[in-house]
Amino acid sequence: MAKKVLIVYAHESPASFNAAAKDAAVAALTAQGCTVEVSDLYAMKFKAAATTEDITGGVKDAENFCYAKEIKLASEEGRLADDIKKEQEKLKEADLVIFQFPMYWSSVPAIMKGWMDRVLGFAYAQEKWYSEGIFKDKKAMLSFTTDCPESVYSDTGINGDINVTLWPLQNGILNYCGFQVFAPQIFWDPATGSPESRSSMLEGWRTRLQNLCGEAPVYFAPLDYFDKEKGFLLKPEVKEKYASKECGLTVGIHMGKPLPANSQTKAGV
Amino acid sequence: MAKKVLIVYAHESPASFNAAAKDAAVAALTAQGCTVEVSDLYAMKFKAAATTEDITGGVKDAENFCYAKEIKLASEEGRLADDIKKEQEKLKEADLVIFQFPMYWSSVPAIMKGWMDRVLGFAYAQEKWYSEGIFKDKKAMLSFTTDCPESVYSDTGINGDINVTLWPLQNGILNYCGFQVFAPQIFWDPATGSPESRSSMLEGWRTRLQNLCGEAPVYFAPLDYFDKEKGFLLKPEVKEKYASKECGLTVGIHMGKPLPANSQTKAGV
Repeated sequence: MAKKVLIVYAHESPASFNAAAKDAAVAALTAQGCTVEVSDLYAMKFKAAATTEDITGGVKDAENFCYAKEIKLASEEGRLADDIKKEQEKLKEADLVIFQFPMYWSSVPAIMKGWMDRVLGFAYAQEKWYSEGIFKDKKAMLSFTTDCPESVYSDTGINGDINVTLWPLQNGILNYCGFQVFAPQIFWDPATGSPESRSSMLEGWRTRLQNLCGEAPVYFAPLDYFDKEKGFLLKPEVKEKYASKECGLTVGIHMGKPLPANSQTKAGV
Repeated sequence: MAKKVLIVYAHESPASFNAAAKDAAVAALTAQGCTVEVSDLYAMKFKAAATTEDITGGVKDAENFCYAKEIKLASEEGRLADDIKKEQEKLKEADLVIFQFPMYWSSVPAIMKGWMDRVLGFAYAQEKWYSEGIFKDKKAMLSFTTDCPESVYSDTGINGDINVTLWPLQNGILNYCGFQVFAPQIFWDPATGSPESRSSMLEGWRTRLQNLCGEAPVYFAPLDYFDKEKGFLLKPEVKEKYASKECGLTVGIHMGKPLPANSQTKAGV
């Protein structure tokens, strides 16, 4: 079955490595018969700030104002700003969402955080989350450039383990919404490398894209490991199960043990 | 000595709990003789997206475009957009920077990420970083609201350990720039609580503010623990030193051990 892919793309320069990575994905996925839609956030001058203007007809609870709750209500009542509606339509159609960006300050650039805050906002306040999240039938992945080599983000590197840096994005946003998360595509410091090294990175990406949709996702603990009645804490029987294992459950939950190695960067760990 | 404080504030509603927390800080710090400046990002309609418009006179390297490098160059040559210059002036004066915000998607709202991307951008491409970072004589802290109770962010909670969620912000941004980071002020789910519980949270904040400037900062591994010649990996003698300790070094670097408990939320751990 032909897949529908949405690429949310955040780089201003068409000459950038990020542009080349996005173009490579469009070409490779289209050649496989996928339908590819690109949200080019800078070209769209996408509004980043989540504001009351995103809700037509005014907010319901100004005193305890919660953007996500107001956005959810407005979404149900058809009172969202047009630019959010358009992105949500693309999202609804998509089987796979790829976020292509340069890492800024250990996270996505503000314009892409704005897309997440505004377009995914309604998903935040749902009753359903994590493995029961509203996008559980969709896949998502991060594809990004760094401006430092891999060693700096290794488990003894000065920036700290990249698995930890990715946790708030991959668990806190994508897994929270239910997305099955493919391992990230990390382009280590392309700006410093030679033209040949950049070509080689892109070639690796093209090769990966050939079978991307067949990949296994990164592992996250399922919702039923946690006890709703007890503040969504890990159930005692799960703790017990992990007592005999070498590693903790994930990067976010350790149980006095080391992280599973590469839990955020490799599938199925 | 009277301190200068900059509060970078991101909530649109003057009736919000975040507004009350910001007002409490302004009042308490002013009463101590501090000079307090507030950057009210929504009121300022602060531009969130980092774009080439932030640099007057055009970028130097369009092909390998790196925002931080271009911003650093433009900063040295006086070619930054006026709104960035103004914020950098406030930052230069400040002894302490408080970021006051509602947590959106495990991070700061996009408008505040935009302040970090654009105003701190020049600090990213410096030769100096971490404990030698350009703001090493300044303090900074996060003060934020969540919309879930503390259990959800505990070490066995479904969102994962809050210490992990805070790592990219506190280490990847604040510590990277050299700031000494005060333990975060976390207001757990004020919107769901009673008016009394909200008052009590604010009272706790006011009490803490009385002696905030005398607090010890959160611990981060100093720059000289890492070997510049070897890709900024931890030095063997530091590894050896930690071999006899119960916990790993920090949330980002574990060395096969559990995290130090509350390393990102308590001072001096």
